Amino acid sequence: MSRSRQGSLVSFRPDIKVVDCTMRDGGLVNNFQFTEDFVRDLYQANIRAGVDYMEFGYKASKEIFDPKKFGKWKFCDEKDIRAVVGDNKSGMKISVMADVGRTDFRKDILNKKDSVVDLVRVATYINTIPAAIEMLEDAKAKGYETTVNIMAVSKVNEGDLEGGLELLAQSSVDVIYLVDSFGAFYPEQIERLCDLYLNIGVKYQKKIGVHAHNNQQLAFANTIEALSMGASYLDATVSGMGRGAGNCYMELLLSFLRNPKYNKAAVMDFVEKHMLKLKAEGVVWGYDIPYLLTGILNSHPSSAIQFIKDGRTDYSVFYQELMDNTL
Amino acid sequence: MSRSRQGSLVSFRPDIKVVDCTMRDGGLVNNFQFTEDFVRDLYQANIRAGVDYMEFGYKASKEIFDPKKFGKWKFCDEKDIRAVVGDNKSGMKISVMADVGRTDFRKDILNKKDSVVDLVRVATYINTIPAAIEMLEDAKAKGYETTVNIMAVSKVNEGDLEGGLELLAQSSVDVIYLVDSFGAFYPEQIERLCDLYLNIGVKYQKKIGVHAHNNQQLAFANTIEALSMGASYLDATVSGMGRGAGNCYMELLLSFLRNPKYNKAAVMDFVEKHMLKLKAEGVVWGYDIPYLLTGILNSHPSSAIQFIKDGRTDYSVFYQELMDNTL
Repeated sequence: MSRSRQGSLVSFRPDIKVVDCTMRDGGLVNNFQFTEDFVRDLYQANIRAGVDYMEFGYKASKEIFDPKKFGKWKFCDEKDIRAVVGDNKSGMKISVMADVGRTDFRKDILNKKDSVVDLVRVATYINTIPAAIEMLEDAKAKGYETTVNIMAVSKVNEGDLEGGLELLAQSSVDVIYLVDSFGAFYPEQIERLCDLYLNIGVKYQKKIGVHAHNNQQLAFANTIEALSMGASYLDATVSGMGRGAGNCYMELLLSFLRNPKYNKAAVMDFVEKHMLKLKAEGVVWGYDIPYLLTGILNSHPSSAIQFIKDGRTDYSVFYQELMDNTL
Repeated sequence: MSRSRQGSLVSFRPDIKVVDCTMRDGGLVNNFQFTEDFVRDLYQANIRAGVDYMEFGYKASKEIFDPKKFGKWKFCDEKDIRAVVGDNKSGMKISVMADVGRTDFRKDILNKKDSVVDLVRVATYINTIPAAIEMLEDAKAKGYETTVNIMAVSKVNEGDLEGGLELLAQSSVDVIYLVDSFGAFYPEQIERLCDLYLNIGVKYQKKIGVHAHNNQQLAFANTIEALSMGASYLDATVSGMGRGAGNCYMELLLSFLRNPKYNKAAVMDFVEKHMLKLKAEGVVWGYDIPYLLTGILNSHPSSAIQFIKDGRTDYSVFYQELMDNTL
């Protein structure tokens, strides 16, 4: 079954939810070292902007990751979130992400009645879906909304993906995310994958989300392609801040959405106050040739991040190295 | 009639032509002041890259524009092109652009037999199409291939546009370009406009081209959307160099195309040698919030260029100014 576009360019779909991942995906750029001011202002900016969910970071295991080596948003202790949001009397919901195998979720994810967090997002690979479901059911039993992000699907064959999606769809999860981890997809491919996700989603009454990367300057294009196909949970970050080439720009996304609740001025003011400084201080992310190359080769951005960190500009040599190591 | 996608993501369409506009659209950034090295190396890089047409600049009137105030590529004298390309023994063709009303085309565009230029591209607004046709017929009679770029179509109503396209299609022009002058279009709109252009193009046996701007980080996405709908002439510039938010990146486009004649390494080597230096010297172009704002308001980037030149970062104030002046 092939799906036609949902909604139009002049109306809005009330099912759309915008998820700000600036501190979570952006935390991968600066080791989660955000200033107090940055976090407080981002919280206020997101409320003013009409963002539906703000993700504060990861619930990473302190057994696996040394808290001395990371900013606190890699762990998102309840007290740290509450220091910013109090009881979060806003209409905006709070989200955290937990990676399969890198979290002590039974201990670290509190019962919802003791937490200001609303949404627990589980990140999994195709081969850890049973472990992801265990986490999702734990979070659901504790009282949370849940989503699951299947990462690196550009490396998964469609039969396996369909099997994984069926498994997840039979769990209690609320939203299944289409994730373009490596920035490898073109809008045409997003369209086809959305078809697959949405067919299963409709069958099991799950919403579909999209999380894109900007390796080929397609994060925004792919996000609105998925949106137009019927995806309703849309991830974005302020100025696209995120690992490597970064994500869909919140500024672009809010400019596209027609729901009058969204207010891009709030985000622009935040950019003016914080993101320009961050960039000036030398925090580096965003489209660049090395990320284009890992994107088209459908591979992890880590080698491109290293290339840039090393101050290299011999792109052709890097491309040959990548082909030696990935094809 | 609604058109389906042409070609696939694994094969290639031999009708595709890639047009490098780095010196023409990029010349609007640096007043056409390219070094001799830059121009020679770009010519060689484009040949190596398999680019089909390289545009050297404008054929601007020396009566209207003072040659002392601009680099020579605003005028593209035959001798200046020949100093770079000789008789152009390469397989790549040479293009120049002429704006309606800003060119002494009868005098300055030589007979093809006396020129190394292959393609004359005419840029027009909807209301100067009769003048454009005069130029196109002059160039055709002199022996050139011709294209026409209708600018600012995002401000034209569809009835007028259809009338203009019909007029142009009845001329001798070879290719009609869909141009997103203000970076205002989403891929969905490009799809619809391509339908209109292609329906007329098929009827009169004209090819369709696309020239996109990156105000909303959609220049590449819109280019491949048009390509996938059936457009065959694709404009791009190295690192997206072009006025304001710039254009579709040549690096991205050549990475997308599957024809083995295209070689992105040649472009990456040119970026390494020349574009990094240009950026380091302070030549500014590319996506930024002010261009996003002129893009979504469907207005000329000049105010955004001024905003950036003035070192301003008060985006919200600028947005209010824009709305006062454009809506």
